[in-house]
Amino acid sequence: MSATIQPVILCGGAGTRLWPESRGTRAKQFLPLHGGESLFRQTVRRTPAGAQFTPPLVVCGDAHVAAVLDQMEGRDVSLLVEPMPRNTAAAIALAVARADAGMLLLVMPSDHVIADVPAFHAAIARGAILAQQDWLVTFGIAPDRPDTGFGYIASGDPLEGGFAVDRFVEKPPLDAAERMLAAGGYSWNAGIFLFRAGRMRDAMLEHCRDIFEAAERAVAAGMHDGEAFYADAPAFEHAPSDSIDYAVMEKDDRVAVVPVAMGWSDLGSWHTVHALAEGKDGDDNALSGDVFVHDSRGNLIRAGGKRVSIIGMEDVAVIVDGDDILVMPLTRCQDVRAAAKARE
Amino acid sequence: MSATIQPVILCGGAGTRLWPESRGTRAKQFLPLHGGESLFRQTVRRTPAGAQFTPPLVVCGDAHVAAVLDQMEGRDVSLLVEPMPRNTAAAIALAVARADAGMLLLVMPSDHVIADVPAFHAAIARGAILAQQDWLVTFGIAPDRPDTGFGYIASGDPLEGGFAVDRFVEKPPLDAAERMLAAGGYSWNAGIFLFRAGRMRDAMLEHCRDIFEAAERAVAAGMHDGEAFYADAPAFEHAPSDSIDYAVMEKDDRVAVVPVAMGWSDLGSWHTVHALAEGKDGDDNALSGDVFVHDSRGNLIRAGGKRVSIIGMEDVAVIVDGDDILVMPLTRCQDVRAAAKARE
Repeated sequence: MSATIQPVILCGGAGTRLWPESRGTRAKQFLPLHGGESLFRQTVRRTPAGAQFTPPLVVCGDAHVAAVLDQMEGRDVSLLVEPMPRNTAAAIALAVARADAGMLLLVMPSDHVIADVPAFHAAIARGAILAQQDWLVTFGIAPDRPDTGFGYIASGDPLEGGFAVDRFVEKPPLDAAERMLAAGGYSWNAGIFLFRAGRMRDAMLEHCRDIFEAAERAVAAGMHDGEAFYADAPAFEHAPSDSIDYAVMEKDDRVAVVPVAMGWSDLGSWHTVHALAEGKDGDDNALSGDVFVHDSRGNLIRAGGKRVSIIGMEDVAVIVDGDDILVMPLTRCQDVRAAAKARE
Repeated sequence: MSATIQPVILCGGAGTRLWPESRGTRAKQFLPLHGGESLFRQTVRRTPAGAQFTPPLVVCGDAHVAAVLDQMEGRDVSLLVEPMPRNTAAAIALAVARADAGMLLLVMPSDHVIADVPAFHAAIARGAILAQQDWLVTFGIAPDRPDTGFGYIASGDPLEGGFAVDRFVEKPPLDAAERMLAAGGYSWNAGIFLFRAGRMRDAMLEHCRDIFEAAERAVAAGMHDGEAFYADAPAFEHAPSDSIDYAVMEKDDRVAVVPVAMGWSDLGSWHTVHALAEGKDGDDNALSGDVFVHDSRGNLIRAGGKRVSIIGMEDVAVIVDGDDILVMPLTRCQDVRAAAKARE
């Protein structure tokens, strides 16, 4: 079975875990953090408009409209502007409210890395069959470590091309993550979803009616301005702020997971940026810009237009952006927010 | 016995061990590396013009004339410009060639720290008595560690206010430094000298005639321009490049050492700048400029007009100067020249 799919790219995040490069209007998804091209552009290129996919719908804040248009470089795009951030459930509700009921929507974050795009496309094909059978489909990443930074999905009964979801597990403590990894049958929730628009509309009206109705009113009272459609602020601000996982997925009883191994990463820390960096030198240093390295190993150095010289350093990040210089061991990346909060 | 003393400040060094702050025309001695005031200004203030000292004679290169005049802030100074660097013997020879034979010259590097100025003055008083008895006087610092970065002076027969020098020891290997520290009777050669000008003239004519005669001709053919006296380049460039230690002190048989404990440091590395820094925080961090510190200990951070944020770092230096950012463990400070050489 084949159907045209509408990519919906959620572009509202800020990404303070990659401060100082990621901040304000220059959010993580617009930066060339991996492979020399921004994560947003990689996301757009992953589902090229043509036989299978329509041009993308990008949901973003007003502050990011210029960056989105700049990075689309004239290719077709629909821009849907959120008047204020209200988390993923409301953002998806805006897209659903503007879509035909029969359309398949593929919702994706704008700031992930997927190394194996053919594997992603194959998973989408499997998911599309389930979505047309009115499953709300999520894609599950096989865990290779007991990561405590992701939600987990427990697979239930097998379906053709996937599994019914038994339950969602919030970001677990380490011992629980280790048990799930050992037990098998769990995957990471990558925040990528595929569903029929009308099916999600019905699910939202059942599970989070306040959110959907606020979004629907915001669309009805919205207006085009230039190349973007602006949802109505007074209507939208009444939408409760909730994630799509909490608001819908965990409550619905017809949710499927399609497991996929596709070299996925949320590139959620400088540690991960180092781990996935291409073109490291022989001493495992990932270097960008004008960097002088003497007797140093395992570092991530991003010179940001300045000149960085390191001597005798191991396993640290030096991130330069404008006048900001961040220095920390790569193992301390979870603490970046402390600096970002103090500095912004 | 009391005599007026001419301070001679040798200001020709570059100080690449404190790169990137120290470089080119902005040499180490002009930077506020300790106590908020440049080392040059501290050197000038240490021998204030008045009853005991004349205004200083500063020997420097053409590139440093502006910095010297700027930092003198209108106070009396004689500027003697070396056409090219020819090491300390030739620089001192220039000063000697311009001085009256009976004058006492106190030669000092421009980039040292001396915490206890009254102790320095007391040592100068003792040294002046010896200098008037035609001793070439050097000042010896009591070693508190087996440092391999300094030359050592072995004391011989006691004199009034000091000792005859038995011998000079070049920068020693560690085991030799440890033996000298254990044996006692050795002091560090701080590069500070006091002598009668005519006595040094005679010593130079005996031990390094080429150097002195080149300096003498360079003075005879020199000219005043603005506030400085320029030694003649064609004459001076024939002077062999040698240190005063090698050229004179080690060869003369009437050299005295005046031991002095005066909180001396040559501030020869970022490690030393950290060790001597005032106003460190409770975690032994020496911070200057706009620095955000999270869970970090024992660091030297100089933000140089930028904003540095450190998380979880211990015992490192982060030195920012213009577009240059240097990051290294404080224990690796001896390797700074590798970066300076690659960058300059």
